[in-house]
Amino acid sequence: MYTIPLIEDPSIGASVVESFAIAKYLDTTYPGDVTLVPEGTDAFQTMFIDMLPMMLTQHLLPVHAARISTSLSPRSEDYFRRTREAQFGMPFAEIAHESTHEAMWRKAFEGFSRIHGWLNANGERKVFFMGHKPSWPDVALVSVLAWIRMYNGRESREWKQLMTADEGRWAWLWGAMEKWSCNIASLRHKEGP
Amino acid sequence: MYTIPLIEDPSIGASVVESFAIAKYLDTTYPGDVTLVPEGTDAFQTMFIDMLPMMLTQHLLPVHAARISTSLSPRSEDYFRRTREAQFGMPFAEIAHESTHEAMWRKAFEGFSRIHGWLNANGERKVFFMGHKPSWPDVALVSVLAWIRMYNGRESREWKQLMTADEGRWAWLWGAMEKWSCNIASLRHKEGP
Repeated sequence: MYTIPLIEDPSIGASVVESFAIAKYLDTTYPGDVTLVPEGTDAFQTMFIDMLPMMLTQHLLPVHAARISTSLSPRSEDYFRRTREAQFGMPFAEIAHESTHEAMWRKAFEGFSRIHGWLNANGERKVFFMGHKPSWPDVALVSVLAWIRMYNGRESREWKQLMTADEGRWAWLWGAMEKWSCNIASLRHKEGP
Repeated sequence: MYTIPLIEDPSIGASVVESFAIAKYLDTTYPGDVTLVPEGTDAFQTMFIDMLPMMLTQHLLPVHAARISTSLSPRSEDYFRRTREAQFGMPFAEIAHESTHEAMWRKAFEGFSRIHGWLNANGERKVFFMGHKPSWPDVALVSVLAWIRMYNGRESREWKQLMTADEGRWAWLWGAMEKWSCNIASLRHKEGP
C-alpha cells in the first residue's frame, strides 16, 4: 500500500487508505457524537468531494505548488515540478506572475462564495454543512483552510482576506472545527512562510 | 406573483413560488412518509440544484429549444428564440446540425454518468439519491427524464439510449418515481413528437 492518505489502527490491526473510506471506517469503528457520513448522505458527500477541485483546489494548487516544491528533496522537486507544470499547462514562474496569481485567487474566492451560498440554505447560525454537527465536507473545507494558512501564513493578505470573506463564514468554521484538530493547533507554532 | 413554478394550496390559502421553497412547504404542511428535504440536508440539496445545469440542463436545453419554440404562440416564439439564441451563443439552426446536436447529447450523457458515480457511493440496490426514500434530487432528476421523454418520444434513439445507460440507473429511477407522479403517467398518452 503506497498511497496516501492512509491510517493504521493498531488497536484493531486495520489499515485503510483513501480519505472517504477512512471517514467511513472511523464512523463504523468508533461511533460517537460525530458521524462524518450520516446514513443516506453518501451520494451527497461524494458529489461534494467531486466538485471541490472545480470550486477550490484546482485554483489553489497552482498558486501553492511553487512553495510546496521548495520543501521537497531535489529528486522529488524535479518530479513534482515536471508533472505539475504539465498538469497546469504553465511553468511555476508564469504562475508566480502577479496577474496569474491574482486571477487564481479570485477564482478560489468565487468558489468559497458559491459554497457559502449553499451553506446559507441551512438558515441562520448553522456553522456546519449539515447544520449543528460536523460531517465530511466540513473536514474537507477546514483541510483546505489549513493548507492555505500553512503555506501563506496567518499574517498573509490571502489568509486575512479569507477570514473576513463571506460574512466571516470561514473564520467561524475554522474556530468551530479547531477542537477536533490537533494539527490545526500545532500549525500555530510551525506555520510559515 | 408572475413567476413559475407556483403552487396554490386552496385548503390553506397559501401560494408558494420557486421549486425548493415549494418542496419545503410540502414537507412542513403535509408531513408523511416522504420528506423531500430531510433535516440537515439543505446545503447538499442546494448544491445539487446549483450543479444541475453544468451536469445536464445546459446541454439539454439547446437541443430541445427548437422543439419548445414550435409549441409557443408567434409572439412568445419570437421572444424565446431571440433570448435563447443569445444565451446559447448560436442560432437554433446551428444547434440542429448533427455534430452540434451529438456533442451536446454526449455532454449530457457524461453528466448523467457522473451523477451515477455519486449514486454508486450509496452501495447496492439504492435507487434514490438518499437511499431508500426519494428526496429533492430524485424529483429534479425525474423531471429532467420526463422532459427528455416528452420532447423526444419514448421511441426515440435518445430516450432508448438513456434507458440503458449507466447500468439501467435511469430506467430504474423512472420506474421507482412513477407512483408519485400523475404527470409521468399522463405523458404516456400525450408524448411526442
